[in-house]
Amino acid sequence: MIREIAENQSPAKLASGERFSVTYRLCGNEKEALARAKDICLEQTVEFPDDLVPDGFIRDHVLGKIESFDRQGDIFRTVISFPIETTAGEFTQVLNVIFGNISIKPGIYVETVDVAPSLFRIFKGPRFGVMGLRSLLDVQARPLLATALKPMGLTSKGLADLARRFALGGIDLIKDDHGLTDQAYAPFRERVALCAEAVERANRETGMRCRYVANITAPAGEILERAATAKELGAGALMIAPGITGLDAMKRLAEDDAVALPVISHPAFLGCFVMGGNGISHGCLFGTFARFAGADASIYPNYGGRFSFSREECANIAAACIAPIDGIPPIFPAPGGGMTMENIPDMAALYGRDVIYLVGGGLFRHSDDLVKNCRHFRSLIDA
Amino acid sequence: MIREIAENQSPAKLASGERFSVTYRLCGNEKEALARAKDICLEQTVEFPDDLVPDGFIRDHVLGKIESFDRQGDIFRTVISFPIETTAGEFTQVLNVIFGNISIKPGIYVETVDVAPSLFRIFKGPRFGVMGLRSLLDVQARPLLATALKPMGLTSKGLADLARRFALGGIDLIKDDHGLTDQAYAPFRERVALCAEAVERANRETGMRCRYVANITAPAGEILERAATAKELGAGALMIAPGITGLDAMKRLAEDDAVALPVISHPAFLGCFVMGGNGISHGCLFGTFARFAGADASIYPNYGGRFSFSREECANIAAACIAPIDGIPPIFPAPGGGMTMENIPDMAALYGRDVIYLVGGGLFRHSDDLVKNCRHFRSLIDA
Repeated sequence: MIREIAENQSPAKLASGERFSVTYRLCGNEKEALARAKDICLEQTVEFPDDLVPDGFIRDHVLGKIESFDRQGDIFRTVISFPIETTAGEFTQVLNVIFGNISIKPGIYVETVDVAPSLFRIFKGPRFGVMGLRSLLDVQARPLLATALKPMGLTSKGLADLARRFALGGIDLIKDDHGLTDQAYAPFRERVALCAEAVERANRETGMRCRYVANITAPAGEILERAATAKELGAGALMIAPGITGLDAMKRLAEDDAVALPVISHPAFLGCFVMGGNGISHGCLFGTFARFAGADASIYPNYGGRFSFSREECANIAAACIAPIDGIPPIFPAPGGGMTMENIPDMAALYGRDVIYLVGGGLFRHSDDLVKNCRHFRSLIDA
Repeated sequence: MIREIAENQSPAKLASGERFSVTYRLCGNEKEALARAKDICLEQTVEFPDDLVPDGFIRDHVLGKIESFDRQGDIFRTVISFPIETTAGEFTQVLNVIFGNISIKPGIYVETVDVAPSLFRIFKGPRFGVMGLRSLLDVQARPLLATALKPMGLTSKGLADLARRFALGGIDLIKDDHGLTDQAYAPFRERVALCAEAVERANRETGMRCRYVANITAPAGEILERAATAKELGAGALMIAPGITGLDAMKRLAEDDAVALPVISHPAFLGCFVMGGNGISHGCLFGTFARFAGADASIYPNYGGRFSFSREECANIAAACIAPIDGIPPIFPAPGGGMTMENIPDMAALYGRDVIYLVGGGLFRHSDDLVKNCRHFRSLIDA
């Protein structure tokens, strides 16, 4: 039946021959792992059992193809290529081809993605990246220092007071806590206006170019509006949690020429992708995908803090943030969460200079004087 | 420092006292599980270490609160309530409070969510639900039968040919395969126009009210446009994969009065939430959240097929699809994937009548005559 229908069509001109590749790590013994690799080729394209796939165009030009299958120690890796036509030139469908249905099958991890040159036109990538953000902040060589305005429950005035002290203390990026959206405690417009103004006033004192980063994670229909409002009210950058809004919503934001502010990605709601018996590698999710989606910096929980990422997993993210990709500039890894003044040296060894240190509670620990604490942190980082 | 700022504000009038509750399942021994419960209260609201949380308003009215903590066999469960003000009346922030940062911590599962009455105004819920969809399809009592147009690589004409045969065979809902978006093989406008027309013509022969379901999973800025186009071209329902677009994008679609078509949720990219060492229960993700987000039916991989959900997990989804929630009608569970003609009796015992059976490859197995195969399947379901 399908064969008959398939034979009556000849869309062979639609096969450019161009493909993009995904490296998957597979669980199980060799036989099981190979079965998983073959399954990916079908499930992510035709979603048909192999014996029902019509020979000819569909089998030759639509299915995923195993380019390699190797054992490395106890682990099997396969590189599978997909015709670029399967993606329809849409980021949402790229994600679907890479991991849509197989996200519901155990034992499959996306490790890396190599996008075909012709797909790059759909990925404009970050507007600023490492160099652009450094230039905006006028910080040429040292790591950047960021912190978060919290706790939820403070008023806008209280948060702005904190922002002023952080900025006076030499912080480069002062972001909303990612849970601050439009709560009555500190409504969006009021909070953004007061915090942006507080940072601007502090900048006039310090001569720095600290930026206030407004969280615009919001319902689908309000993201761009909040971004525009934030810009109008003086915010210097935007934060969004793509695990909640969808990665493509971040891409749309990053590509909005009317907004044109740096975009910082927050990892909320994304944890399950990297913590289970299947998923996406830390580097691919928080590095590669964040870059595809136009983030200029990618926040993730640092090793040694209150979250569970290992040093190696963090290194994987940092590497993916800066690895050369044609046409997509490197972005800042922004390790955060549970960071203290004590573990900076080891982080410096791991991350080098192109990193944003996101410090939260740690800034309140050194002494009662917040400005002094920030300066102390900055001196550690400058050194 | 924070204390000083917190004491200078008095937003106590902002505390309505209304809360919503989440039941979490926690891993570890009693001490570890209790530590996880306490951590959730902090991490999902103030994101501050306990000793830095200011007493007074924030501690009393912003933090999550452990309402109960129980051992059930080897498992610990806790009910944690959050002030409704933490959600800002936004679905995106509801998701963030429930599972944002703790998605990055191991051993925590969201089991069920009880939303406060005042939060329901942000959840309009499904436009049609079980009763509405039955009425549109003119099928009063029996289970519904659905299938997918595939494989990718067929032309629009080929897919429309399939759609016609499925409709002649008595299928109720004929959906695009979720990987069909706007590929050159079968571009969106052309495919939707031809498939909708083919189904409509078949309906005139059969007297049925079969509906063609267009997949509008698309980049963030194009979803509503595709929905409107699909409606204009005659599609009778819409499918979207909220794992790719974000759950709130589905909610926005469902609430769009200009579109006003039934919405079917597809599980692509959502698997990691239910398959790892932390996550969201099957019922909460594919049932409760799908209803909050306005889906009229929720597709998920059936037990016994090529995916890995157990019979119990599928029962959990079906129960959450129809459990009474004030103001949010029940929706159809739509088990799919790898279904065959043989396992219908067991499914009937599990799902009862309010179910959509989504059959793919199975329809091609019985004989070479697709129309006849569909009729055979229908007769099994009718019985």
